[in-house]
Amino acid sequence: MAPIIHIRIEQTSKLESQIMPAIDTSTRDTLFPKARTYNSWQKKDVPDALLKEVYDLMKWGPTSANCSPMRIVFVKSPEAKERLKKYLDKGNIDKTMTAPVTAIIGFDLKFYEHLPKLFPHAPDMKRNFEGRPDVVEEAVWRNGSLQGGYFILAARGLGLDCGPMSGFDRMGASREFWPEGTVEANFLCNLGYGDSSTLYPRGARLTFVETCQVL
Amino acid sequence: MAPIIHIRIEQTSKLESQIMPAIDTSTRDTLFPKARTYNSWQKKDVPDALLKEVYDLMKWGPTSANCSPMRIVFVKSPEAKERLKKYLDKGNIDKTMTAPVTAIIGFDLKFYEHLPKLFPHAPDMKRNFEGRPDVVEEAVWRNGSLQGGYFILAARGLGLDCGPMSGFDRMGASREFWPEGTVEANFLCNLGYGDSSTLYPRGARLTFVETCQVL
Repeated sequence: MAPIIHIRIEQTSKLESQIMPAIDTSTRDTLFPKARTYNSWQKKDVPDALLKEVYDLMKWGPTSANCSPMRIVFVKSPEAKERLKKYLDKGNIDKTMTAPVTAIIGFDLKFYEHLPKLFPHAPDMKRNFEGRPDVVEEAVWRNGSLQGGYFILAARGLGLDCGPMSGFDRMGASREFWPEGTVEANFLCNLGYGDSSTLYPRGARLTFVETCQVL
Repeated sequence: MAPIIHIRIEQTSKLESQIMPAIDTSTRDTLFPKARTYNSWQKKDVPDALLKEVYDLMKWGPTSANCSPMRIVFVKSPEAKERLKKYLDKGNIDKTMTAPVTAIIGFDLKFYEHLPKLFPHAPDMKRNFEGRPDVVEEAVWRNGSLQGGYFILAARGLGLDCGPMSGFDRMGASREFWPEGTVEANFLCNLGYGDSSTLYPRGARLTFVETCQVL
């Protein structure tokens, strides 16, 4: 058998060997089809070390010029939860107050101050954003939300369930939790171990044909 | 040993047994730390069936009220690539013209027309968006970009490499590929099998302490 194995190795070019493996069915389920948005939670703590692990995984996701504008406040203590409560839409209060952690996913309007460190091979990149609030606005919404997507999937990948929400007083919560005024909240994401007994039926999704074209 | 095993089963409540497994190290690498933004591509086709598989995986990611505003044009034929070329920033032309596929990730400003199907248990949800361009604008940037994040990670999970970019004439490309005027391009994402010989060094990321607070 040795020569056959040898021939196969020769046929696998250096480039082809770099192709990453596709994830298995169980992992796909964990991240996408079987993951659900939870509204009630098991009484099980989420340690700070796990929150750090989620960040240290999702931070590698790509952003424009590596600009990485996402910022997070993990609201965990009863005191911090109480501060958040007054900004929540009525329908989001119970699930948020009982969640082990609520992440406020925000973005930093001064993200470009970090570009010399994050994108050192283009030292002038910062100037594309300074004094241009419209360009900053588009960049934070695009890239801060992309990072929000990475965050949700990293949390799921590390065994957490998520309950993302946009029903809250966004600017009120921004000023409460980022009083320096340069960071704005984007959405909230409850984190913990979900209680599936209260799940709603799975919502339908648009089909490929309704959503995509191949030209 | 039988009684001990029995006791353990009894202690595992119905709820705890629902905790999803964390993904393994190899999968984490595929999705995050070892995945890179590619600038050149192997000459290897990406079949349409794989593009559909990416969509049919990422579509399950959560959005506000399941609103799912993301739309995609997969630019694949030489003719379609040529139509895209004139809207690309100079630095993005070569890598895009040589990529097997370029996905134009956009969002539908009329996404709310689909809410009766996507969120049937709240038939009035559509009214929250009709005639309110500011509310629509915030929803499409947040949810369309979240879905962009799901798209990138689903593509990586299915073995593709990505090259996301925001350097292009966004509104020009929108009118070219969605002439009906209700869909806007958000960003571009080259897709294929990357040639790692042209990768830049890995960019640094902000630390947990620079980005996150636990309260």
